[in-house]
Amino acid sequence: MSRPTPLSGFPEWLPAERIVEQQVLDRLRHTFELWGYSSLETRAVEPMDQLLRKGEIDKEVYVLRRLQADPDDAGDSGLALHYDLTVPFARYVLERSGHLQFPLKRYQIQKCWRGERPQEGRYREFTQADIDVVGAGELPFHYETELPLVVFDALSGLLDVGLPPVKMHVNNRKVSQGFFRSLGFEDLAGVLRLVDKLDKIGPARVCEALVAELGATDAQAKAVLEFASITAEDGSVADRVRALGGSDPLLDEGLEELVRVVEAARQAAPGMLIADLKIARGLDYYTGTVYETSLVGHEDLGSVCSGGRYDNLASSGSDVYPGVGISVGVTRLLSRVFSQKLVTASRSVPTAVLVAVASEETRALSDAVAADLRLRGIATEVAPTATKYGKQIRHADRRGIPFVWFPSADDDGEPVHEVRDIRSGEQVPADPQGWEPPADDLRPRIVQA
Amino acid sequence: MSRPTPLSGFPEWLPAERIVEQQVLDRLRHTFELWGYSSLETRAVEPMDQLLRKGEIDKEVYVLRRLQADPDDAGDSGLALHYDLTVPFARYVLERSGHLQFPLKRYQIQKCWRGERPQEGRYREFTQADIDVVGAGELPFHYETELPLVVFDALSGLLDVGLPPVKMHVNNRKVSQGFFRSLGFEDLAGVLRLVDKLDKIGPARVCEALVAELGATDAQAKAVLEFASITAEDGSVADRVRALGGSDPLLDEGLEELVRVVEAARQAAPGMLIADLKIARGLDYYTGTVYETSLVGHEDLGSVCSGGRYDNLASSGSDVYPGVGISVGVTRLLSRVFSQKLVTASRSVPTAVLVAVASEETRALSDAVAADLRLRGIATEVAPTATKYGKQIRHADRRGIPFVWFPSADDDGEPVHEVRDIRSGEQVPADPQGWEPPADDLRPRIVQA
Repeated sequence: MSRPTPLSGFPEWLPAERIVEQQVLDRLRHTFELWGYSSLETRAVEPMDQLLRKGEIDKEVYVLRRLQADPDDAGDSGLALHYDLTVPFARYVLERSGHLQFPLKRYQIQKCWRGERPQEGRYREFTQADIDVVGAGELPFHYETELPLVVFDALSGLLDVGLPPVKMHVNNRKVSQGFFRSLGFEDLAGVLRLVDKLDKIGPARVCEALVAELGATDAQAKAVLEFASITAEDGSVADRVRALGGSDPLLDEGLEELVRVVEAARQAAPGMLIADLKIARGLDYYTGTVYETSLVGHEDLGSVCSGGRYDNLASSGSDVYPGVGISVGVTRLLSRVFSQKLVTASRSVPTAVLVAVASEETRALSDAVAADLRLRGIATEVAPTATKYGKQIRHADRRGIPFVWFPSADDDGEPVHEVRDIRSGEQVPADPQGWEPPADDLRPRIVQA
Repeated sequence: MSRPTPLSGFPEWLPAERIVEQQVLDRLRHTFELWGYSSLETRAVEPMDQLLRKGEIDKEVYVLRRLQADPDDAGDSGLALHYDLTVPFARYVLERSGHLQFPLKRYQIQKCWRGERPQEGRYREFTQADIDVVGAGELPFHYETELPLVVFDALSGLLDVGLPPVKMHVNNRKVSQGFFRSLGFEDLAGVLRLVDKLDKIGPARVCEALVAELGATDAQAKAVLEFASITAEDGSVADRVRALGGSDPLLDEGLEELVRVVEAARQAAPGMLIADLKIARGLDYYTGTVYETSLVGHEDLGSVCSGGRYDNLASSGSDVYPGVGISVGVTRLLSRVFSQKLVTASRSVPTAVLVAVASEETRALSDAVAADLRLRGIATEVAPTATKYGKQIRHADRRGIPFVWFPSADDDGEPVHEVRDIRSGEQVPADPQGWEPPADDLRPRIVQA
């Protein structure tokens, strides 16, 4: 076999990077559970018709085919890999609703796949960490204010692992659609789609497109751009929209909701959330609050955390399960952390102690020491070969293992043990059934790179 | 959308089952790290040619295709989902060898996909938990004795969550091949393949096939069957093989290795490992010790934990990375635990406390209590709606949340808090900044169903 080369768009971490990823995922999980969100996983595949009715990324879907499909067994035909965790969760809720308690708060940390053109922050395989709340029939609005607070709590727990601070940009579909309707537009989704291109093509070309594609007057186009330029970190956002004129019941409802979200965040997490009326979100299914999040100082990376309220995603006949969710782009975050070497792990292995081996004949003695240490929760491995001690110490050093243990015996055959901190070189007698490493050395830590 | 139905072969757990799965995975991870194994993940996809050269399951591979593939961008053509974690790990080692330290001890817990006909214990999507050790150029034999001990340590940590005990059946390819060669067979892989069918078709038909397909004499066929019937829990296995006659250097080498594995396990984990010479393992790449594991009392489930030594899986030109690994079939284990209701979770949510809401106007008071409790690591949620307290208590009860918190104020507006253990009905005054639940109630526990 020739030496393989990496597949573009399918990132794989080295052991030290994986330790950082694990600690990030552990902290996200811890916070989500603190807020009462239950873990769920869904299968990686969905029927294609499910995936193709949800948004604009149809052609990026990966379809599955069994190499030699059995015509008698079509149970797995027409399947494709999921590209997010919202659509599969909505399907799961419908399928298992009789076995679930509502409102259902769940988090879901899994890989997703999209055949996008790879670049930093855009991968073909990537890990998402989603939280959603779904109600049966109805879902109280206050979950739209809770979700940003959960995310801020979770991401604040990552600041000390080197993650830059975030800023969440929030809008409400009712505000945009209500305002556009008050201006006289009929194709509200069309206006939203053009506003969504503001960052990419700039206001001048959006203005042209509003006129050319949607038949807007200059005044209408100008009002849309003024509206989309509004940002505010408090309830004043409503006054600024009302100052543009225009009146619509949907606009009023949306503004009241938007103010509640902004004000709740301003009290609980000052400076972390801003109302930003150009936020549109590509996906069709959002019906209320929409969220996007930038990494401060790394805005080029795109949104690291997005979501919104969806009223009609999970519905079957008269059974409707409205929901709201936010998805953290874990791989996108980590790719920046690793490419800019913001942090690393203090060692590349879980091991705190390497037990040296004097000779292959006495390996059992070293194994016994390792067993004693493991009983007290100290991650321990035994040297692979009974080479010179200098080589065994280098084995530990190259992996960042802080301690090397030397089992021995005195002239009477009684065991004599010493342990060396290979960073300081200090070597002291130690009892395998009592010695403990400093708490800081017990597990790998995340440190500045 | 019509109500979806489950896809056969793609199991999805309910929230309480997922809690059991998480605790099982956490314990496996804990043990693997205690023994110094580093976590790694590989991408879900491999180039098809990689997957098709490894074994007998070609036709079960799921091939990927982008819905609208871009002819300018063929970077993701010819990919398929991995069906195990050994082949991807071998590829990863070759690809990243310059960045890795050898011997490399890694564990890997991920989903795999095979288009098998679904039945209990056989799924199209399933989670495997693998440990492997890979060396550069060479790998000391003692890792073949270590791996079963790691697995026993890991699985023993699951006994108190209701997992039945296991028995590992071990053989060595060198023993089988050396013995078959000493009998005069040339197609050693052919004999192995027929021996592998013993459990399925029985000794009489294996005997017939040895004669008909491989031209064996009756005496040769009888010797193969006698050999394959040998089992032993100690070093006597070597004597019993030698008593059959036959001599071959490979046989001698294999017997010495097999005895070392059996004796190491007999000392460290008595009764958990048995030499069983009919064990063959389907995959071609094993070259030494091979492992299979049955769940005691559930032998019909098949092996829940399999693996072996592979000398040539990861090699590129003169660079060879011999390895040994064992894979725990987590989904297969859990499917039995759930289908026979061996255990469940003490509640279906992480939440320890539900904070009641007296009225929507005072929801902020309840949110503040929840924030205080979360600061001390107590998983807390706030009631979704300010319904009657009886309904809020039922909300907690249906999820198994043990405590409901009632924030209130006295006649002077001073906050007055009470917390109720809804199992006993006992309600006591409590301070949101000081109260702690009993340690046993802090997190969901695994309990007898």
